[in-house]
Order: sequence, then structure tokens, then C-alpha cells
Amino acid sequence: MINSFLMVGQSNMAGRGYLKDVKQIYDEHIKMLINGRWQTMTEPINFDRPTAGIGLAASFAGAWRLKNENGQIGLIPCADGGSSLDDWEVGGALFENAVFQAKAAQRMSTLSGILWHQGENDSFVGRSAVYYDKLDVIVDAFRRELGVPDIPFIAGGLGDFLTRGRYGQYFTEYNAVNQSLQKFAETRPNAYFVTAAGLKANQDDLHFDAVSQRKFGTRYFEAFFEKRSVMIPPDNENELVNIIQDRALTPKEQTALLEISFAAGKISLSDLEGELALINIK
Amino acid sequence: MINSFLMVGQSNMAGRGYLKDVKQIYDEHIKMLINGRWQTMTEPINFDRPTAGIGLAASFAGAWRLKNENGQIGLIPCADGGSSLDDWEVGGALFENAVFQAKAAQRMSTLSGILWHQGENDSFVGRSAVYYDKLDVIVDAFRRELGVPDIPFIAGGLGDFLTRGRYGQYFTEYNAVNQSLQKFAETRPNAYFVTAAGLKANQDDLHFDAVSQRKFGTRYFEAFFEKRSVMIPPDNENELVNIIQDRALTPKEQTALLEISFAAGKISLSDLEGELALINIK
Repeated sequence: MINSFLMVGQSNMAGRGYLKDVKQIYDEHIKMLINGRWQTMTEPINFDRPTAGIGLAASFAGAWRLKNENGQIGLIPCADGGSSLDDWEVGGALFENAVFQAKAAQRMSTLSGILWHQGENDSFVGRSAVYYDKLDVIVDAFRRELGVPDIPFIAGGLGDFLTRGRYGQYFTEYNAVNQSLQKFAETRPNAYFVTAAGLKANQDDLHFDAVSQRKFGTRYFEAFFEKRSVMIPPDNENELVNIIQDRALTPKEQTALLEISFAAGKISLSDLEGELALINIK
Repeated sequence: MINSFLMVGQSNMAGRGYLKDVKQIYDEHIKMLINGRWQTMTEPINFDRPTAGIGLAASFAGAWRLKNENGQIGLIPCADGGSSLDDWEVGGALFENAVFQAKAAQRMSTLSGILWHQGENDSFVGRSAVYYDKLDVIVDAFRRELGVPDIPFIAGGLGDFLTRGRYGQYFTEYNAVNQSLQKFAETRPNAYFVTAAGLKANQDDLHFDAVSQRKFGTRYFEAFFEKRSVMIPPDNENELVNIIQDRALTPKEQTALLEISFAAGKISLSDLEGELALINIK
């Protein structure tokens, strides 16, 4: 049986880290939902924009796998760049899409958690003041519509870099949103907050970079696994990310990646056949 | 109002052409449905696999735009690599996903056509013999569930290269599938066949290359526009593809592409600002 996790929020949940900056995570036991079916996860998982890249879900899944040696995990990508809480209103397009995808996944898995990262687009013109109440309505509705009243809800904080960069004027209330997310975790059942302290951004000072997203995912997993908020960056997160990324691939996984490289035109037919022969010899 | 088109089938509808082999098509009036909302189309449109690339839908939309100067077109990507007709059975995951996405699009557009390319995975072990009947059930169900009984259904042929390559043994009946698709167009209302004659493949002899997909899209549009099957490659298709690809970008489109390049880490902040200044001067 697959344990599945719903990915909802805006661009930093979808992921905007650059693929070139981290090692690939590829594990047959980690799936993603595409067109209503499971396939082995590759990144970008949540293809909401042409800029989609590395998010936190892959290393979350990798950390989950370290605690579930024979288990399978499935990710349900529904995050959408630039979306505000109003864009996530109950009955709206994003909400309805996420409910549809999650219900499709529930036919083939146990929905086990909701991973949320959102708030940049509620960090100005007074929106932060109503963040808690609006979020409460949305999370309640997800739990009710999906029939999972006690499902863990894990929300990460916004990055401290937001007010610095090119788009900084739009994030003056980011700290108030972070306080609302923390308060939500403190006051609502099975809700946990994950600090973004120490995490870094791309050159846009808007999106977590790939290395930071890898760390963030392990923090999300710690919150899920320990059933508590993570307020201080864990000491061992770099080590944990390395363990996840350096996991040895099985011959079947090596073969699948070679077939992908071939189909994508990155290696020639003779390279493919040579590499496959080497795998089969081992 | 947007005229929308449902993209269904397997990998050659999703698209596996290499992005580097053709010029980008970017036009604010061409949209794609992601997470239940429209956004300006970029390729890959139909992100079903890590190998997703150039398909036929972008140049189909570009050709549509040449005949609809002020119109907007929306693409609904639901194709899934390697899927057989059995995978598309009514009530199955792929069918239900496509119906959900098309209904979401119908709230914001007029569903105007179904673009189909599929059959490679029904080209062996006798499957081709039941292709017509199985397809008939699926197309009927789409038309009925979406409330569009007369909607044009456009299906392209399978490539003549299929039996040649690394995977050739799986496509021995590809010609029988092509005959079934032609018969379908001849005998069923508002159904059209589009020849794949002359189109070429990637090194895998499995997927149409990007240049061929561009041509294929204009053939699909000719079938849609003329309401007849296209049995012979049009003489002017290269010229038509060039016109579509060489369309001058508006300043707003140039700005959007620069913002994407910046967010993706392909250009620096100073490059972005320099380029934006040049656009604003013009």
C-alpha cells in the first residue's frame, strides 16, 4: 500500500530550485500522481509553470523512505505559483483540482498528510491579518471533503530573504504570515509548523534554492514523523540530505534512468546499449 | 471567449520532440490548462513524463491563431505516455482525469475539438483487430459526458518508422491501426484522419521529432478547419510552420519570457533589467 501526501500552496511548494544544483533523487518506491496514475517520481514533480524545479517534496519522500524501508510513498502535486489564499477558496479551481487529484490517489493509497507552503501572496496590503481565519476554512474543508479529519497538516515558514530582493515591496507582511502559520500549528489539531530559518534563495530572493529545498523537505518530514513543530533547524540535516541523495540505485532504476536519457536525446543508442550491458554484467 | 481543445492519447500526443530542435511558440492568446486554470502556453504542454517535449498541439494552436486574429485558444493536456485503449477505458483513471479537466475548462471556454494520437500500444498481439470498436466506445463516451455530441474528433496516423527501431517488435500491426483510424474517420460523424506520411522520428524510431510535430500540428488544424481528413501532406506546411514560429512577440510577451528566463536562473538580474529597459525604450 502507498502512503500518499497532498502538495498544496504556491511556487515554493511546487519548487523553483535549479535542477543542476542538487543530485537527483530517484527511487522506485517514491511515486508521483500524473493523469490520475502513479509513476516513479522525477523532478520537477509539480509542473505548474515553465520554471518548475526542485521543491521540498522529493527529500521529504526520501526521508520518509529512510524510516520505511519497504514502504511506498506517493506525492500528489497540486501547488500553483503565485496563488493567494483567495485563489485557494473552497470550491475554487485550485481547491477543486486538489480534491479531485487527492480522491483519485485515495483509490490507490492512504492519504497520510497535507504538505502546505504558501503565504508570499498574502504578505501585503493587509492580507496577513486574515491569514489564520482563511487558512482554517480551507484546511477544514480539505479534511472534510477528503474524509480525513485527523490528517497531519504541515506548513513551512516563509523565507527571511523575501523583503530584500527585486520583488521585496510585495512581502512587507511576511513575518505576520509566519506568525499566523505558527499560531495555526499551536491552536489547531494535528497541525505543525516548520521553520525556514537559514534557508537561502535563488537570485530572485523569492524562491528557495535547490539546496535549501532539500533541507526543508527533511524538516517537513521531522515534523510529520515526530508530530511536532520544527522551530530550530536540525543539526544533521545536511548529512540526512546526503544520505537520501547518495542512496545506491538498483539495476532496475539505473536502467529506467538510462531509458529516460535515451528518449530525451541525451545519450545515443550505442551509449544506451553499452551502459545497459554493463548493468547486466554486474 | 476561449476555444478549447482536449489533448488525449499517448506519448506522441503528449509530445517527445526535443525543445532544442525548433523555435519556441509563445503567444498570449494561446493558453494551457494547469491546475484547473489557464496560463499562457509554454512547451512542454503535456507534462506526463520527464521526457515530455514538443508535441503537435502548439503548432495546431499557432495555425488556429492565423485564422483567428483576435481569438484565444486553450489546450487541455491529458495525454499519457504508453497508454493503450484499455488504459483509456470509460471510467478508468485516464478517462476520468480527462473528463474532469475538460469540464473544468468548459466553465471558462467553449470545448471545440478533441485531438487524439494513440495506437502504438495497440499495434501488437492482435489488439489492432478491436481498435475501431474500442475507440468508438471511448469517443462516444467523451462526447456524451462532456455534452458535445457533434464535437470534431481529429486523429493522426502512426509513423511509418515504428517497425524499424529498437522497439520495432512491438509495432507489427501499426498499419492495421492506421486503417482503423481511417475507417473511423470515414464512418463516424465529425471524425477526421490526419496522415503522418513523411514525418520523422527521434533516434528511438518511436516518437515524432520536434520538426515533424510542428508539421503534424498544422495538418491537424487543416483537418479541423476544412472539416475533412488530410490524406496527403500539404505543400505549404514548412512555410506555415515558419510563419507560426516567426510571429513577432509583443513587448508584454517579451517581458514575460525574460521574467521566466530570470526565474529559471538562465539570465542574471542585471541582464534582466537591461533587456527590460530595451523593451521599454522601443
